[in-house]
Amino acid sequence: MIQGIGASTGIAIGKCFVLPNWEWDLPEQKIDVADLAREFERLYEGIRTSKVEIEQMKDELSEVVGPEERSIFDAHLAILEDPVFMNEIQGMIERQYKAAEVAVKEAIDHFVTMFDLLDDEYMKERALDIRDVGNRLLKHLLGAPEITLPSDTQPYILVAKELSPSQLAHLNPSNVLGIATFVGSTTSHSAIMARALGIPLVVAVESELEETVVTGDLLIIDGSSGIVELKPTVEQIRAYTKLKQQQEEEHNRLRGLAHFDPSTPDGKTLRLSANISSLKELEIALSSGAYGVGLFRTEFLYMDRTRFPKEEEQFEVYRSVAEKLEGGPLVIRTLDIGGDKHLDYFELPEEENPFLGYRAIRISLDRRDLFRTQLKAILRASHYGDVKVMYPLISSVEEVREANGVLREAMEELDREGKPYNRSMETGVMIELPAAVMIAELLAREVDFFSIGTNDLVQFTLAVDRMNDKISHLYEPFHPAVLRMLRITVEAGRRQGISVGVCGELAGDPAALPIWLGLNVDGLSMSSHSILQVKERLLRTQQEESKAVLQHVMASSTSAEIKRLLREFQGEVDSQEEQAGVGDPLRS
Amino acid sequence: MIQGIGASTGIAIGKCFVLPNWEWDLPEQKIDVADLAREFERLYEGIRTSKVEIEQMKDELSEVVGPEERSIFDAHLAILEDPVFMNEIQGMIERQYKAAEVAVKEAIDHFVTMFDLLDDEYMKERALDIRDVGNRLLKHLLGAPEITLPSDTQPYILVAKELSPSQLAHLNPSNVLGIATFVGSTTSHSAIMARALGIPLVVAVESELEETVVTGDLLIIDGSSGIVELKPTVEQIRAYTKLKQQQEEEHNRLRGLAHFDPSTPDGKTLRLSANISSLKELEIALSSGAYGVGLFRTEFLYMDRTRFPKEEEQFEVYRSVAEKLEGGPLVIRTLDIGGDKHLDYFELPEEENPFLGYRAIRISLDRRDLFRTQLKAILRASHYGDVKVMYPLISSVEEVREANGVLREAMEELDREGKPYNRSMETGVMIELPAAVMIAELLAREVDFFSIGTNDLVQFTLAVDRMNDKISHLYEPFHPAVLRMLRITVEAGRRQGISVGVCGELAGDPAALPIWLGLNVDGLSMSSHSILQVKERLLRTQQEESKAVLQHVMASSTSAEIKRLLREFQGEVDSQEEQAGVGDPLRS
Repeated sequence: MIQGIGASTGIAIGKCFVLPNWEWDLPEQKIDVADLAREFERLYEGIRTSKVEIEQMKDELSEVVGPEERSIFDAHLAILEDPVFMNEIQGMIERQYKAAEVAVKEAIDHFVTMFDLLDDEYMKERALDIRDVGNRLLKHLLGAPEITLPSDTQPYILVAKELSPSQLAHLNPSNVLGIATFVGSTTSHSAIMARALGIPLVVAVESELEETVVTGDLLIIDGSSGIVELKPTVEQIRAYTKLKQQQEEEHNRLRGLAHFDPSTPDGKTLRLSANISSLKELEIALSSGAYGVGLFRTEFLYMDRTRFPKEEEQFEVYRSVAEKLEGGPLVIRTLDIGGDKHLDYFELPEEENPFLGYRAIRISLDRRDLFRTQLKAILRASHYGDVKVMYPLISSVEEVREANGVLREAMEELDREGKPYNRSMETGVMIELPAAVMIAELLAREVDFFSIGTNDLVQFTLAVDRMNDKISHLYEPFHPAVLRMLRITVEAGRRQGISVGVCGELAGDPAALPIWLGLNVDGLSMSSHSILQVKERLLRTQQEESKAVLQHVMASSTSAEIKRLLREFQGEVDSQEEQAGVGDPLRS
Repeated sequence: MIQGIGASTGIAIGKCFVLPNWEWDLPEQKIDVADLAREFERLYEGIRTSKVEIEQMKDELSEVVGPEERSIFDAHLAILEDPVFMNEIQGMIERQYKAAEVAVKEAIDHFVTMFDLLDDEYMKERALDIRDVGNRLLKHLLGAPEITLPSDTQPYILVAKELSPSQLAHLNPSNVLGIATFVGSTTSHSAIMARALGIPLVVAVESELEETVVTGDLLIIDGSSGIVELKPTVEQIRAYTKLKQQQEEEHNRLRGLAHFDPSTPDGKTLRLSANISSLKELEIALSSGAYGVGLFRTEFLYMDRTRFPKEEEQFEVYRSVAEKLEGGPLVIRTLDIGGDKHLDYFELPEEENPFLGYRAIRISLDRRDLFRTQLKAILRASHYGDVKVMYPLISSVEEVREANGVLREAMEELDREGKPYNRSMETGVMIELPAAVMIAELLAREVDFFSIGTNDLVQFTLAVDRMNDKISHLYEPFHPAVLRMLRITVEAGRRQGISVGVCGELAGDPAALPIWLGLNVDGLSMSSHSILQVKERLLRTQQEESKAVLQHVMASSTSAEIKRLLREFQGEVDSQEEQAGVGDPLRS
């Protein structure tokens, strides 16, 4: 058993193909002054060809992946237009008479070393992008053949040092059972793409594999546990085959729940809606039986392009989603960039602590023009469905009033333009800052609904960036402080008579369900792939019992105790059903 | 009137000396291969001389500045030993046959450009350090004379493009009335040093000054407002001279309050103690009438050196402070590095959001060896005075229990070593995370006191990094959410019968005093220079009236309203005293 980190779930069993590393044969001679012009022509030709290739890959992929993955290739195109990178290459040709391929190779090495030196995960990923693009350019300059993956063979498990997004883009998903890489991380561009393509992936596999594996070896990889078995025994193959079948059966069984009513046995209905980023994701949401969209992340609409989307473009997308929901609610969150989300065409300041920086509603209130355009598009979509608008990262009553002021301006503009919209479109705020919790009672007077964003709320309450490996173990949603914040928010909303939902990751965690039932929230919004799991548990959990458990939970002083109580309760629910011999409708 | 940014308070009036920019005359010839060895020898000799000079400056300054300022020079020494910087220089000599001074110049330009490109305040400051050190090295290589400042003249106001710490270090403070620079920021190393040296400083002065000023011009600079007057009129000189006198008189008047009892007219005593970082600062604290030390920041003891301080070294410092306090309380906060505070010899991970990262108690609980050493030193000091220990950045009950566990280990070691300590030394926690506020009632059962750290608490509650120019206007201590957090904390402490103080910057803001009196906190700890100002207000403010004001404040929904209420109350207090004609003991 060799350990790695699971980066895309699923089990793969099969023979492997080990990808050789790229090696280059560079010319040693300097070029002649007379050949400078020719060398530049070669460089520009190589850049042009590389761009065409990248554009092609992007197009090929549009069918299988979402805008977030496609935007990776925009980043690659941007590198080929980056003045610092290109000046470095041109300078080496022009002043040091280096051949174009040598200049490109040295520029890659220079920037990769520099970015690696920074010891910063984001910059390291950028270094990988530069190497990927640079190697593509190099390939064209050298006329070297691309290392191609076997495509006419049996399906295989791909093993490589690391995979760049463009290598992944060339994979035929129906031929690749799974992937194991020796480096990489769960947040890399390649991992995001593997998840989108549904290919099991284990990254950062222990060096033992690299030292011993050869093409043709039998391999098992488990994208959940991160386990890799090289030359597995017959028993291991049998066990993993069974596990793979079980996972598939479980998947199918859950799909059968899509059209059940989302209610507890004692009659509490909890709306389970989906968090989505694109029209494509809406299909998956609807097939999982989502009750509308509780969070439409509009930033991805802004990412896959070279300039801000116009009102008309946004309107078309919002309207399409609203119409496909056929009356189901659609909560559109206004632009939430900054922090770890950037746009290629909108320069954000470099910040020491981007999570505590220029983000979300702060940008919108600073850039009223962009904000008004988005609000107009949302308002216009409200004519075609049950559309609501939601402001992210609200910290004060003033911000809500300002945002609603811009909303009124947008309405006035639409009135002048004679365009229809829902004059009483609901407005809501994300409750994701400790400040918003503390003044929830004041905020509730300004809006129609709250949606609790647990991810940021936990991060700020505990001062833990969960992306930071060094302290991510301190990121603890089941923390007594977090639960108190949830309670304060729900109670404030109740007293003011507005609806309170949850849209952070905790909403999709079945273990948290007794908390939501105990607090009596109105709805949960989550990733589509969590909806059926949560619904299964909802169908079997009593609200009254959940309230009793919550009392104990709220009296606990540590997260360990809280998690123990929730586990015990879950065990009780499961065993009660077994003892009572109740014909579980879900298991029939 | 020309506007700049005030970076070190005080008014200066006098003739100016305009510092010329450094210009270099570099050799144009490449060196001969045969001279390579000699060129390297020149480079190394230059580095040696530069190091000696920097060490000298550091020594000369030990008398006037604290460890934080001295550590600037350690950073400069580190640059001369930086392998990346040095390899770049050596490579240019060895492979491109450049003269040592040309290689140094190009390396400086390269790194400065690179760091400047990053558009990151911290890196920009590092770029300035590299230029400073590099120019020193260049000076030695070129045998160029140092541009010296006039020292035998009348005292003058120094005007320069920018000042490096080493230029500042060579200033004779008694000769320099004030400084105006065209670039720079209030957080630069130079600004820190100017404040430590007590020299008024205005930075980022509008270009108008640069275009017109010449040495010998009469100038007024106001380090509070950032105003610079070039060739002031007689009226202006008169007005600013008067203002300068008033500031000095105010300063003297406040000093007269040092020995008054810190009580309100209706008898509430509020202990006003000092936040200090070194023994030197303790003197200032005592002369300001501080009641003990409410926050001893031990990280500065760790900063001014090349390795972790040993138990004995720490003990000596803690004991000296404890003894000088003659029984007054001394709250020692355990190591609070990370975030924006680093040690040269302890590598911290590069973090996307250092404020939400590996910091403070998180490092201490990860590095038990270091933590135990510090706790032993603190315990031993507890034998010599009223010493208490305080843990920073506490987010959970588990962390306090773990920290107290290490404290018990430290006690057991001291028992075995037969060293005396106070067996019932009090322990406390900083309440500076929203999580700590939410579970204050649980934390209060584990410790003897709370100290509210308002700076971090405000930052996390509002998700605002106040060092970030782009959003620092959102950093608002008088935010309704913050006030609710303060109230929750004080009430939890009260219910559990432990003492609650405040040690963040808000403690030293006279405008916040009615809040503290209204909440009935036990003590405030602040910069020594704020103690007398807060005391003056304390002597004139009724606690009962403060409680009434606080009720209104807590009912307000915006910070604007809260600040208006506090301003009005302050105005009332002032006018009541005037109307009543009460002989104000403070103004006599």
